[in-house]
Amino acid sequence: MSKLLIVGTVAFDAIETPFGKTDKILGGSASYISLAASQFGVKSGIVSVVGGDFPKEYLAKLNERDINTDAVEIIEDGKTFFWSGKYHNDLNSRDTLITDLNVLADFKPVVSEKFKNAEFLLLGNLHPAVQMDVINQLNSKPKLIALDTMNFWMDNALEDLMKVIAKIDVITINDEEARQLSGEYSLVKAAQKIHKMGPEYVVIKKGEHGALLFHEENVFFAPALPLEEVFDPTGAGDTFAGGFIGHLAKTEDISFENMKRAVIAGSNLASFCVEKFGTERMEDLSSDEIQKRLLQFKLLTQFEIEIN
Amino acid sequence: MSKLLIVGTVAFDAIETPFGKTDKILGGSASYISLAASQFGVKSGIVSVVGGDFPKEYLAKLNERDINTDAVEIIEDGKTFFWSGKYHNDLNSRDTLITDLNVLADFKPVVSEKFKNAEFLLLGNLHPAVQMDVINQLNSKPKLIALDTMNFWMDNALEDLMKVIAKIDVITINDEEARQLSGEYSLVKAAQKIHKMGPEYVVIKKGEHGALLFHEENVFFAPALPLEEVFDPTGAGDTFAGGFIGHLAKTEDISFENMKRAVIAGSNLASFCVEKFGTERMEDLSSDEIQKRLLQFKLLTQFEIEIN
Repeated sequence: MSKLLIVGTVAFDAIETPFGKTDKILGGSASYISLAASQFGVKSGIVSVVGGDFPKEYLAKLNERDINTDAVEIIEDGKTFFWSGKYHNDLNSRDTLITDLNVLADFKPVVSEKFKNAEFLLLGNLHPAVQMDVINQLNSKPKLIALDTMNFWMDNALEDLMKVIAKIDVITINDEEARQLSGEYSLVKAAQKIHKMGPEYVVIKKGEHGALLFHEENVFFAPALPLEEVFDPTGAGDTFAGGFIGHLAKTEDISFENMKRAVIAGSNLASFCVEKFGTERMEDLSSDEIQKRLLQFKLLTQFEIEIN
Repeated sequence: MSKLLIVGTVAFDAIETPFGKTDKILGGSASYISLAASQFGVKSGIVSVVGGDFPKEYLAKLNERDINTDAVEIIEDGKTFFWSGKYHNDLNSRDTLITDLNVLADFKPVVSEKFKNAEFLLLGNLHPAVQMDVINQLNSKPKLIALDTMNFWMDNALEDLMKVIAKIDVITINDEEARQLSGEYSLVKAAQKIHKMGPEYVVIKKGEHGALLFHEENVFFAPALPLEEVFDPTGAGDTFAGGFIGHLAKTEDISFENMKRAVIAGSNLASFCVEKFGTERMEDLSSDEIQKRLLQFKLLTQFEIEIN
């Protein structure tokens, strides 16, 4: 049995940044999420789909880290989802060059028996109807369901998106998307409105400006670590989400206090992800490096002040 | 004797935001800085210049708060510096409609005897030659000199700016200006380069995204408080600087640990400043409100995490 079930894309990415350019490398939301979550020693499984062109060694890389890929359907005569993008000089914006959905276009997720009792479910960025389909196949409601989404689904599948958002506990979304979904510019008001749509916890990702966690009247802020170099931002948001759910699944504690730690854990892993192309840095990351950087997060944010 | 000497503009502002519009109201960097610093019960004095059109009651408002305005020169047949701007809907950008330098164009600061031994000097945003002129008139080097500047001086008086930057201890500057001054996109690298220009401490203001404090290998981050409403961002940066120096002058402790608190104190006051037009909120602010919000800053950023 896998404790953590991850639904998302497993894909090829071709990335160009001011520092270089890759051929087709391992990408996709589920790849980044599962690699991040694997840092917490949590057994996870992915529900996704690839084509016959997808290298077995990519799946083997994931399996080595206790990531079960039995439910990654392989459509032998199909082609794997392919995304290609080019980042601008500031690395804060990018142009999408190619989005070939390929086998993803007709993806019908099948949750196998051993995943149907997963305690933690992370619905990575995918069509909201697919996300809902996965929820409906489970035997019981997981301890926690987190969902990541993007503006594309707000533009193209808002009704489906609203239905699945009503079923989840945590949404992770970036600042512009939070504004679009809520119609509010203030992120505080946006979080209040999104909260009313369903999720008890709203996480707003602000990229290099950190992330905000909202719950009832409480708000917590995790900064992004100021870095000398950002090499490739691809996958940072998914890595954040994977670190977040990985920490929660490991500790099995879904209190607000522990979610604060989960947001820090996610920010910490995301700070590594951007140091190399694609998933490269997440593959060679050691537990020691993670611990050292956690200390940097503490030093970055903690202060003692007298309050009268 | 005033412990804190503030050099900057005392001006008229006319502000338009999506929420309303003002006639000529009290503005200027020195006004915001001194009002913020006055919250710490520190005696301060302003060196500046106004025209004969400047209402005596504006100066009286400052005097009531132990802000000495004897060195605010009044040029009876001149007109006060006037700035007018209109904010865009997101409040993150604005168009300057009018900049009438008026008496500021020929301003020669005169530091009176009672300010020449000030322990803390804040050089608010002004021509760098004027900032340098003030440093040169002091009897001895203050315990701490902080300087605020902007891109306009980088474009138009870079040589003078570099000279004064070499003489100071702390620079406060926004992110885009830090990038312009250093030629580095990464704020970590930008701070390293600016550090080499002179100041031991570099504070990079990121507006609604908070502020970073750099010193040697150390970095500290103070978030901006997420607010439901931002009414008028005018003066937030100066209020931040005033709160920063006010805290340092009150505590007389210029260690890195205490500067972290000073950055929080500045962010705290800036979060109030934006709640009303101009200096209005800073004038009716109570110590109790400040303390309550400090607690919010703690709750926003503090976490307990196990590091192995």
